[in-house]
Amino acid sequence: VVRVKSLSSAMANSAKLHPVAGIELATVCAGIKKADRRDLVAIKMVPQTAVAAVFTRNEFRAAPVLLAQNHLQTHKPVCLLINTGNANAGTGQQGMADAQESCRQLAQLLQCDEQQVLPFSTGVIGENLPVQKIVAALPALVENLTVDGWEQASHGILTTDTVTKAHSYQIPVADQSITLTGIAKGSGMIRPNMATMLAFIGTDAQIEPTLLQQCLNEAVTQSFNRITVDGDTSTNDACVLMATGRSGVEITADSAAYRLFCDALCRLAQELAKDIVRDGEGATKLITVEVNGGASMQECHDVAYTIAHSPLVKTAMFASDPNWGRILAAVGRSGVTLDINAVEIYLDQVCIVRDGGRSPDYTEAAGQAVMEQNEITVRVALNRGEHSTQVWTCDFSYDYVRINAEYRT
Amino acid sequence: VVRVKSLSSAMANSAKLHPVAGIELATVCAGIKKADRRDLVAIKMVPQTAVAAVFTRNEFRAAPVLLAQNHLQTHKPVCLLINTGNANAGTGQQGMADAQESCRQLAQLLQCDEQQVLPFSTGVIGENLPVQKIVAALPALVENLTVDGWEQASHGILTTDTVTKAHSYQIPVADQSITLTGIAKGSGMIRPNMATMLAFIGTDAQIEPTLLQQCLNEAVTQSFNRITVDGDTSTNDACVLMATGRSGVEITADSAAYRLFCDALCRLAQELAKDIVRDGEGATKLITVEVNGGASMQECHDVAYTIAHSPLVKTAMFASDPNWGRILAAVGRSGVTLDINAVEIYLDQVCIVRDGGRSPDYTEAAGQAVMEQNEITVRVALNRGEHSTQVWTCDFSYDYVRINAEYRT
Repeated sequence: VVRVKSLSSAMANSAKLHPVAGIELATVCAGIKKADRRDLVAIKMVPQTAVAAVFTRNEFRAAPVLLAQNHLQTHKPVCLLINTGNANAGTGQQGMADAQESCRQLAQLLQCDEQQVLPFSTGVIGENLPVQKIVAALPALVENLTVDGWEQASHGILTTDTVTKAHSYQIPVADQSITLTGIAKGSGMIRPNMATMLAFIGTDAQIEPTLLQQCLNEAVTQSFNRITVDGDTSTNDACVLMATGRSGVEITADSAAYRLFCDALCRLAQELAKDIVRDGEGATKLITVEVNGGASMQECHDVAYTIAHSPLVKTAMFASDPNWGRILAAVGRSGVTLDINAVEIYLDQVCIVRDGGRSPDYTEAAGQAVMEQNEITVRVALNRGEHSTQVWTCDFSYDYVRINAEYRT
Repeated sequence: VVRVKSLSSAMANSAKLHPVAGIELATVCAGIKKADRRDLVAIKMVPQTAVAAVFTRNEFRAAPVLLAQNHLQTHKPVCLLINTGNANAGTGQQGMADAQESCRQLAQLLQCDEQQVLPFSTGVIGENLPVQKIVAALPALVENLTVDGWEQASHGILTTDTVTKAHSYQIPVADQSITLTGIAKGSGMIRPNMATMLAFIGTDAQIEPTLLQQCLNEAVTQSFNRITVDGDTSTNDACVLMATGRSGVEITADSAAYRLFCDALCRLAQELAKDIVRDGEGATKLITVEVNGGASMQECHDVAYTIAHSPLVKTAMFASDPNWGRILAAVGRSGVTLDINAVEIYLDQVCIVRDGGRSPDYTEAAGQAVMEQNEITVRVALNRGEHSTQVWTCDFSYDYVRINAEYRT
């Protein structure tokens, strides 16, 4: 109870981004795609910071993803270098050389090994990275590093996003306190698979890397891996969690603070993930798809994602049309063998399907009332087991088509 | 060579729908959803006609689908009864009673068993079938039966379709001739799984039911099961093939005419299937996705459908934007483990990706020229096996959103 309360009260302050002791950030305009656009970000951490990360499972992983994974295997990171405007994906050997050169130049300025720099890129796929513009901007970047840089950085990593995504908590632990601050970007090409487009989370907790990675995996599974805008997993997804230890609060697997920390991290990741869906390209609504009573997690996910990806369901949501036949059809084609007479489907609390057809007490007015809302839960009760899941998606609007038809113009 | 030639010359005549000896059709306005709209069709066949059929694998199969499957197990069909404007799906026990009543009333007029009538419905899901309107229209339907009714019937089965889909061939077999005529409907909620929305094909060939079903399965696998507009498999899909035997040409498994017949049927089904995609809701382009060099059919299909379902690829196609990074990202997220350096991707004959990145000889102008076309082939060469597949899809436009946002208004 105390845990939930302290977390909630901390979340009320999330508009303010608390600095994380041991982490400095800087953001500058390098002119990568557009002039006078903040497009280059550095996140520098104190030595001995534990770093956990997850990356996209797209087979066509971008050069910076491959290089960051590589560097992480052998070195303790000192700095993240993030650019927007160019994904450096589908760029072959030149792309890898460009990512390496960026790391090398920043490492020289920071006097560390180039393997201690992790590169991240987001933007258009298939164009070569303008390395010289990035290198030219590095000295200003290093000069601007500040512990108060989270807010500027949350702007500097955006692409088609219309709003920043940032949350920050302070969690009381005994008579001390841990800070957790995170930023993310993402709006289209969003169906993360072990990571979201880009998310960077810092904490001053002291936690050993293996345990930190375990916390991150758990949080990502329940947040970034549960969202979809268009079903398109990006080539550049990455989520990084940095723990500086500067709070002096040590978290071990058997400590009381462990669950507290994991829950807060999970909550933070979920907030960032839902922010991404709310800001999904063209989105006007946040749709939570909940499937419960499943015989396995797999069948819960199959049903949930079939609904969440259905263009027919998503256009009906956009139109606020309780055309529930489309939800029923999506459940039916999810590849899960069902006793359809046992399945119930709800819009929020309104039962729309029961006994294989329209629920006898359903009225179009009740369905319409739910559909008018900005946030809607579609719940499917399979009624044959104990497993359940939630995924988050958005509706499908004219603007999704416009944004993606005009993206490169 | 002769075979292909005779088929091609026959196809040149496909604008004319040849009557099929032994099959009569009628189309009337029953006022099911709109007044003065042809919405009720009967297709009557002579006794001893062999009938093969495939149906949707959606778990929420509509009442008419369940009843037609049931009737087919025990009786030789005499007549198909097809309505548009209402899918009679998600209607529970009432839906089944309504479908049965329609069959019973038509059977009385035709003096046959009610199990010899097969019902088919298409239209909005979740509303009860207006049986009395259908029953009232049956006498006029029976009165209007004519061998020249194919064209009218091709209109009478449409929903959001903007054009009819109909093809007809006459195939020379020795000094005789077989006729094959087929009609189909479908525009949205199209990702058939063992059938399309609705297709009805008649032939005067004489062929034993088991062999007929085998021919149909083969044709459907290579046609209706290879198309997708929006990935949404309907609750009402069905495809029926009727062989009256009236040509006097007998087709047996070891006859020379067998391959001839199967190839023509497959071609007919493919033409109807591609017509459905061309008329996909909001579609402006027909996209053929070809994957070859796969180690298995499954991986070819996984890659092909991931591209064909990607909203990002489909909006780029709509915009005629050669944003090939989206195709690369789709291939990479298809769930197939790949050696990306071996993968090649082409737009028609233009190589866009090779050696893990943009092909050195690719130019934006060359990609743009292909993208301006109305029909585009995306070809992915996996270069590690002998399997290949083709699927057909369309682009994703403003009109797709408009049509599906306004569908019930």
